[in-house]
Amino acid sequence: MASSLLRLPSLLAPAPALLCRGGRRLYAAPSAAVARLSAAATSTGASAAAPAQAEGARGGDREGQVTPRSADFNAWYTDVIAAAELADYGPVRGTMVIRPYGYAIWEAIQDYLNVKFKETGHSNMYFPQEASHVEGFSPELALVTIGGGKELEEKLVVRPTSETIVNHMFTKWIQSYRDLPLMINQWANVTRWEMRTKPFIRTLEFLWQEGHTAHATLEEAEEEAMQMIDVYTKFSYEEAAIPVIPGRKSKVETFAGANRTYTIEAMMGDRKALQAGTSHNLGQNFSRAFETQFMDENGQLEHVWQTSWAISTRFVGGIIMTHGDDAGLMLPPRIAPIQVVIVPIWKKGDEKGVVMEAVASVQNTLKEAGIRVKVDDSELRTPGWKFNHYEMKGVPIRIEIGPRDVKNRSVVISRRDVPGKQGKEFGVSMEPSIMVDHIKGRLEEIQASLLQKAITFRDSNIVDVSSYGELKEAIAEGKWARGPWSASDADELKVKEETSATIRCFPFEQPEGTKKCFMTGNPADEVAIFAKSY
Amino acid sequence: MASSLLRLPSLLAPAPALLCRGGRRLYAAPSAAVARLSAAATSTGASAAAPAQAEGARGGDREGQVTPRSADFNAWYTDVIAAAELADYGPVRGTMVIRPYGYAIWEAIQDYLNVKFKETGHSNMYFPQEASHVEGFSPELALVTIGGGKELEEKLVVRPTSETIVNHMFTKWIQSYRDLPLMINQWANVTRWEMRTKPFIRTLEFLWQEGHTAHATLEEAEEEAMQMIDVYTKFSYEEAAIPVIPGRKSKVETFAGANRTYTIEAMMGDRKALQAGTSHNLGQNFSRAFETQFMDENGQLEHVWQTSWAISTRFVGGIIMTHGDDAGLMLPPRIAPIQVVIVPIWKKGDEKGVVMEAVASVQNTLKEAGIRVKVDDSELRTPGWKFNHYEMKGVPIRIEIGPRDVKNRSVVISRRDVPGKQGKEFGVSMEPSIMVDHIKGRLEEIQASLLQKAITFRDSNIVDVSSYGELKEAIAEGKWARGPWSASDADELKVKEETSATIRCFPFEQPEGTKKCFMTGNPADEVAIFAKSY
Repeated sequence: MASSLLRLPSLLAPAPALLCRGGRRLYAAPSAAVARLSAAATSTGASAAAPAQAEGARGGDREGQVTPRSADFNAWYTDVIAAAELADYGPVRGTMVIRPYGYAIWEAIQDYLNVKFKETGHSNMYFPQEASHVEGFSPELALVTIGGGKELEEKLVVRPTSETIVNHMFTKWIQSYRDLPLMINQWANVTRWEMRTKPFIRTLEFLWQEGHTAHATLEEAEEEAMQMIDVYTKFSYEEAAIPVIPGRKSKVETFAGANRTYTIEAMMGDRKALQAGTSHNLGQNFSRAFETQFMDENGQLEHVWQTSWAISTRFVGGIIMTHGDDAGLMLPPRIAPIQVVIVPIWKKGDEKGVVMEAVASVQNTLKEAGIRVKVDDSELRTPGWKFNHYEMKGVPIRIEIGPRDVKNRSVVISRRDVPGKQGKEFGVSMEPSIMVDHIKGRLEEIQASLLQKAITFRDSNIVDVSSYGELKEAIAEGKWARGPWSASDADELKVKEETSATIRCFPFEQPEGTKKCFMTGNPADEVAIFAKSY
Repeated sequence: MASSLLRLPSLLAPAPALLCRGGRRLYAAPSAAVARLSAAATSTGASAAAPAQAEGARGGDREGQVTPRSADFNAWYTDVIAAAELADYGPVRGTMVIRPYGYAIWEAIQDYLNVKFKETGHSNMYFPQEASHVEGFSPELALVTIGGGKELEEKLVVRPTSETIVNHMFTKWIQSYRDLPLMINQWANVTRWEMRTKPFIRTLEFLWQEGHTAHATLEEAEEEAMQMIDVYTKFSYEEAAIPVIPGRKSKVETFAGANRTYTIEAMMGDRKALQAGTSHNLGQNFSRAFETQFMDENGQLEHVWQTSWAISTRFVGGIIMTHGDDAGLMLPPRIAPIQVVIVPIWKKGDEKGVVMEAVASVQNTLKEAGIRVKVDDSELRTPGWKFNHYEMKGVPIRIEIGPRDVKNRSVVISRRDVPGKQGKEFGVSMEPSIMVDHIKGRLEEIQASLLQKAITFRDSNIVDVSSYGELKEAIAEGKWARGPWSASDADELKVKEETSATIRCFPFEQPEGTKKCFMTGNPADEVAIFAKSY
């Protein structure tokens, strides 16, 4: 299994001299040519030749070579993942390696949700991933048939989700109403045999959390399912700056084991919908199948009422496709692994000392204020290379410090979300209290601005329709269609066949007044949102 | 797959009246009979009949029915795991469900190590668990041969460890000395097809972290391997209160892919050794096999130097077997999910209000001081049941608050590690600053005391030997033998065959002076430690 990678002698020369600066502007806006040069210096012959979407694309070698988003959204997406070093392809088809920077985004998601899950009364635990084969779930399964060198008598399934083993154990653990509610969560890997894969969005194996709860009443289970979709919604808006639309899935789109499936639907930059999280009210479907019963306060045996809910590494793909632009990734400050990058700039050796001293001081000030700050003081890369690099990585704020800044006791700040001169501020004081306030304020502005931009984009791409013709038109334009719906499952499938759009959800937020189904003309209780999706 | 559990109507009556107290002593030391009664009230017929080690043993049903440690250490171990609700058996042979309380201990391990790993320059990431089959690692592997309903052309291995895929990716990512050192870690599940399993210690699947690093020089790799075994050693002593002995494995016991394996060896309560963590200097073994090369500063292509290091959920088993006693688990405060449990005690309804008010106040005080505190205010259990329950769970400190305590503005404190009256303190002031200092002081004392007890136990069970006869005698007594060793691999295997003891390590801490190998009489540079092990 030794690598068959084409290995050309590297073109790397040690430590190209730091980019000269005649004036501040020279390094402030490094030309595309400089960017391409730095990129070429780190790329191998093999990767330079590889097509953007090929499995062989090399991470981290493609800086400055990202396909424009408007030209080819899919190519842009995989280019950004490679160039920002978020993930790479594993050797087995459909598998993905999550690289440190991509994993750090997942850790930010975990850190937030883990706290919320505990606050709402859930405990983490861990179920084994190998379980007996359950019939009827086959097309997506990976099966272990050989263990310890021997053919197994009973094939084992590699976990695609855990409802079956959860209920097996719940049946052991739950006897009485005193054992309820039982509310647990696990962070785990799951495997589903997907034919068409896409990094983060759909891979053979992915990481997720799956919550599983058991309750004494239907009402409690319903409340829990709603509570968790609400946790996901808040996370999406407040942390990821993704204005998801929470709602209920149609019967056709509801999880097979659930009575109701709630979802958060996000609009990606290409206006496709991404199902970014789900929460199921499972009713008594699993408890009846597994005889998960409890003795109620009156001594009656009852089946428990259950929920399950999940968010996965797919959400990282959602962040990329919501905020990214032609320069690469753009991260909301609250989930950015690096919120501020400091790039020291100096030309002559005698400048280095004072610049680095100021850099260290600013770094400490920000770090102590709880800001996630990184200094890139490598002398192996030019400032221009670094500017591109951290823009590609979506770092919200860049601080530049050169000898003139040190003299003025100030720094230069650039916002990732506002390109060019408009995003730059000169002469921001180094005085700790002023600078900390300033940076914190800017981070909040960026956070709010990313959300607002995404809301505006979303709302300008949802069309209210009152006929099937209008729906077809909206979908053909790549938009989402929202309209009153009370038609049949057959009608829903017909829409899918004819337009490739599905009902993403009946949003919780519904317009007032009486409604007429745009398909049948019958009265409708709710509007539904239709869209093409990932 | 519906459960075939024997389900008898539960004997549970709602809310047995709170245990009466004629005087404080009545509830202070609940009799074994009370304990057994409470236990009986929660056990099902099925579990009461099940032998201790049987796979069918029911978690949480066996309170008060733990086999004495001295009578049968193995039965005690599995009893404690069930009664303290640490883990349960999964439906597939050899699999384990880690229950919330057991998982919380693992989370404490993760929280500490994760910070240390990052402080020492490592980033987390994630490699896929399905990889191509590598020959020669078969006996322990689980193989996926069917995916998506079809026989796979190439069998896939479910990750037993990740050196191969790590090097596959390192070869892609590393071109230049500028890409080094590359230092990563992943928290993951691994699967090994074990024939004889034991909860936490050896299961089909377990959780671990695996660190993988690549360096430009042998010296750097060696330094890294040593640094990480040092991190593990500090964690063991300072957090888990386990006085591991760090050292180097013999050639026979070194990981097949490593030049050197460092280990931490812990003495369990039955005096068997547990290998609790390892760190490997892999040299260039993997980099040569996978052609993982870098261009050095002089333009020369070199193979990288690597390390890998791991700690797993096995460590939880080590904590149980180091500190536990006949009353159950005993947790060092620093890694205890609950450091203090508060049990309210009241008899008459009109006492409840004042007691619960004081309980809430004490709880808040401790919580604000950063102490992990739990109140068990359930009216479904008696104080006596609760005392047993949290002793079984190894909670370091119990606080009792009754009406008389409220009147005196004081509480009663019991230490888990000091049984009976000696471990109790009456009249500890509720005044926040006094109480917080007092509890913090006690937690530190308990932490130090558990470590000291384990050190004393360890040291009184290591025998210095100067002949093979003395070694045989020490091993036959169940002890560890330490003696100068420079004999052959064949001699080492002979010792193993004849005594079942292996070289656990050449400890880093070596006695001064010249030494003679106890087996051959030849000069020896080092002493080795021999012991039977898990």
